[in-house]
Amino acid sequence: MTRSWVPGAAGSSYDVTNLPYGIFSQPGDQPRVGVRIGDYLVDLAPLAAQEMVDGGHVFNRPTLNDFMSLGPTAWEHVRRWLIDTLSDERERDVVEPFLVPLGEVRLHLPIEVADYVDFYCSIEHASNVGRIFRPDDEPLKPNWRHLPVGYHGRAGTVVVSGTPIIRPRGQRRPAGEDATPAFGPSQRLDIEAEMGFVVGAGSELGSSVTTADFADHVFGVTLVNDWSARDIQAWEYVPLGPFLGKSFATSISAWITPLAALNAARVDLPGQDPEPLPYLQAQEPAGLDIAIEVEINGEVVSRPPYSSMYWSPAQMLAHMTVNGASLRTGDLFASGTVSGRERETRGSLLELSWGGQEPFEVAGDKRTFLQDGDKVVLRATAPGPGGSRIGLGEVRGRIEPAR
Amino acid sequence: MTRSWVPGAAGSSYDVTNLPYGIFSQPGDQPRVGVRIGDYLVDLAPLAAQEMVDGGHVFNRPTLNDFMSLGPTAWEHVRRWLIDTLSDERERDVVEPFLVPLGEVRLHLPIEVADYVDFYCSIEHASNVGRIFRPDDEPLKPNWRHLPVGYHGRAGTVVVSGTPIIRPRGQRRPAGEDATPAFGPSQRLDIEAEMGFVVGAGSELGSSVTTADFADHVFGVTLVNDWSARDIQAWEYVPLGPFLGKSFATSISAWITPLAALNAARVDLPGQDPEPLPYLQAQEPAGLDIAIEVEINGEVVSRPPYSSMYWSPAQMLAHMTVNGASLRTGDLFASGTVSGRERETRGSLLELSWGGQEPFEVAGDKRTFLQDGDKVVLRATAPGPGGSRIGLGEVRGRIEPAR
Repeated sequence: MTRSWVPGAAGSSYDVTNLPYGIFSQPGDQPRVGVRIGDYLVDLAPLAAQEMVDGGHVFNRPTLNDFMSLGPTAWEHVRRWLIDTLSDERERDVVEPFLVPLGEVRLHLPIEVADYVDFYCSIEHASNVGRIFRPDDEPLKPNWRHLPVGYHGRAGTVVVSGTPIIRPRGQRRPAGEDATPAFGPSQRLDIEAEMGFVVGAGSELGSSVTTADFADHVFGVTLVNDWSARDIQAWEYVPLGPFLGKSFATSISAWITPLAALNAARVDLPGQDPEPLPYLQAQEPAGLDIAIEVEINGEVVSRPPYSSMYWSPAQMLAHMTVNGASLRTGDLFASGTVSGRERETRGSLLELSWGGQEPFEVAGDKRTFLQDGDKVVLRATAPGPGGSRIGLGEVRGRIEPAR
Repeated sequence: MTRSWVPGAAGSSYDVTNLPYGIFSQPGDQPRVGVRIGDYLVDLAPLAAQEMVDGGHVFNRPTLNDFMSLGPTAWEHVRRWLIDTLSDERERDVVEPFLVPLGEVRLHLPIEVADYVDFYCSIEHASNVGRIFRPDDEPLKPNWRHLPVGYHGRAGTVVVSGTPIIRPRGQRRPAGEDATPAFGPSQRLDIEAEMGFVVGAGSELGSSVTTADFADHVFGVTLVNDWSARDIQAWEYVPLGPFLGKSFATSISAWITPLAALNAARVDLPGQDPEPLPYLQAQEPAGLDIAIEVEINGEVVSRPPYSSMYWSPAQMLAHMTVNGASLRTGDLFASGTVSGRERETRGSLLELSWGGQEPFEVAGDKRTFLQDGDKVVLRATAPGPGGSRIGLGEVRGRIEPAR
C-alpha cells in the first residue's frame, strides 16, 4: 500500500489514501486551498505554481468552488499528482517548504454553498420521529419508501466546524389552554448527525443526473451537524416544512473528502422494498460504510452507522434533478439524521431522549436537549484500502446563550 | 411633479418616480447595470464613470449584488442623482449618449440569488389551498395567524422573465388501488403570482432584523411567478414541505424596483387577529397597494390585489431572522401566491379551477392547468406620486414539453 513520507502520516487516518481538501489561512494571509496529510497541510497554490500543475491557479482562492468546478478529470489529475508527490521520498525536498502544521493555521468554511438540501434517508430516524411527533399515525408517510424525502435549507447559515452556536429564539406551540404561542429561547435545542455531499460539476436546467453519473458531479463528502430547535420546528412545520427550527445554523467539517477516497467504503444498501422506480435504480454498491460518533462534553453518546441508510447519495442526486432542476458548483445535499436500529446508534437527542421523556446520562449529568455551554463533537471514519481507516474530520460546536 | 426629459418617459409608468434597475447586454458586450426610464435604459457604468459618481464602479458588473451591498445611503444617493439628471433638461447632452432603446438589449437575471424563501401570506390563498388539499380539515393550520409561514426554495433555479419553462417530470400519488406511484410529466402545472423582496444589505449571524429596520436591508421589489407542479407537490410534501414540485423554476421580472419608488403605494394591512407577538408588530403602514394581472395566451384571467395580503414584507423579514439567521446580499423572499376574496382575483390555476374540478375559459379554450405552448404573463403596477402609476415590469414564461 502506498504510504506518505510526511512525518507521522504513514498509517494514520490521513495518509495519502485520504487527502481531504480545506481552506486555511495563516495570520496576515489570504485564505487559500490546502490538502491535509497527517497533521500537516500542503499549501497548494505555491506548490502547484512551482510545479506548473495544470489548473493550479484555482488553489489561490478562498473557497474550493473554482477547483471543484473544473470537473472530475481535473479532480483525478490533481489527486494522482498529490498521491505521487506525497508518497515519493524523492519529492520531499520540493514539497517540504509548503508543509504547514495544522496547529498553525485557521480553517475556514471550505465551500461557498450554492443550494443546501437536506434529505431524510434513515428509515430508523424517520420512523422514530414519526412515532414521537405523530404517535397516533403510521410513523412513515406513504411516500417515504418511494422517494428520498427532502427539502431546501438555508445555504447562508452553513458554518464551519468550531463556529459557536447561538441558541435561537422563536415561537413555540401554545401550552395547554393558551391561545397564544410562547416566545423565547428554544428549550429543545438538538443536533442531527448527518453526512453531506458536495456538488463540484453542475448541470443544465431541464436535464437530470442519473444514478450512474453521480461521480461526474459529486466532488466529495463532509460531515454535517444540522442543528435543530425541536420546539420551534414542531409549531411551524405544517404544512410547508421546517424553516426557523433549522435555519439558524448548520455546521460542516473543515474538510471535504474526495469521493475517490471512499472506494473501499462502498457497500450494498441494506435493501429497498418496494423496488424503487427506474430513475432511482443503480447497479453498483451505493451505500457507504462510514462510522459516525457523537460526543457531548467529552463523552461519546452515540455511534450512528451510515451503512444503515435506506436511500443512497446517488439516489438523492437523481431524485433532486429528476424534475429538471439544475445543479451548481457548491450545492450541498445532506443525508438527514443517521440513526441505526439500537438506542445507542441514534443520531439526534430527540431520539436519544425519546422526545424529552427519557433523560440520559452525559459526563455525569442528565440531558434531554442541549444546555448552554454544551460542547458537541461529531467525528467520522471509513474503511480505506488494505484494512486501513480514513478520517472524515470532525464537526465541533459549543452552545452559547440566546441573545 | 418631477418629470423626465427622456422622450416618451414623462407621464408614463416608467418616469423618474420609478427607475427600476436591471442587467442588460448588447451583442458582443458584457452584461452590466442599467436603469429603466420610459422605453430606454441608461447605461450606468460609463455615465457614472464620466460623472465621477461615488461607488460607480459597481455598475460594471453582471448582477446588481455589488451595488445592493453598498447599503441604503448609497441607494438613496444614486437614486437622487438619477432623478436630478433624468429630469433636468440641462443634463440632456451629457446623458443622451448613454440612453439605449430597450428593444436593442437583452435583459438578464438582475441579481445573483443567495437564499430564496417563499412565504404563504395570503389568507385567501392559504384557506383555498387548505380546502382543496385537505377538505376534511380546518383550512388554516393553528400556526397560520401567529406567524408568516414560509420555507426555503431553490435559489439556483430562479430565472429571468422570458426563460422557457420545461414541464417537469416526477412522481405522482398512486391512483386508486395502485401501490406504486405514477411517474411522468406533471399533469397539473401551475403558476403562482407573487411579489418578491430583494435583500441588499445583509445582517450578522445571531442578530435579528426588526420590522422598523426593513428599509435598511431591503433594496427593492420584483414580480415573481413561482411555477408549481401540483401533482408532484401533493405526493412529496409530507412531512417536510414542497421540494421538486417547486424547484424546477421560479421566474422573476428583469427589473428590481427600489423600495423608495413604492412610498405612494403604502397602505395599512387589512387587519390581523389575533394581534401578533411584539417582534412582528410595526407602527407604520406596512401593506403595499400593488395591482397584479395574470394573462394566459393573451387574455387576462385574474387580477390579484397585493393590498389584501395578511402579513407584511417587514413581518416576513423580522420573522425570517428572529432565530438569528443571517441575511446576505441577494437573498430573495417572496410573499406566496396573492389571492383576493373573489374568484377573478385568485393567483393560481389551482384556485381558479378549484383543484381542477372547475375548468375555466381562456382565449376561447378550456383550461384547468397549463398546457404545452401556453404563454403566461404577469404584470404589476402601483400608485406613484400625484395620482400617477408606476410599472413593476412583467414576468413572461412559455411552457415547453417535458424532455
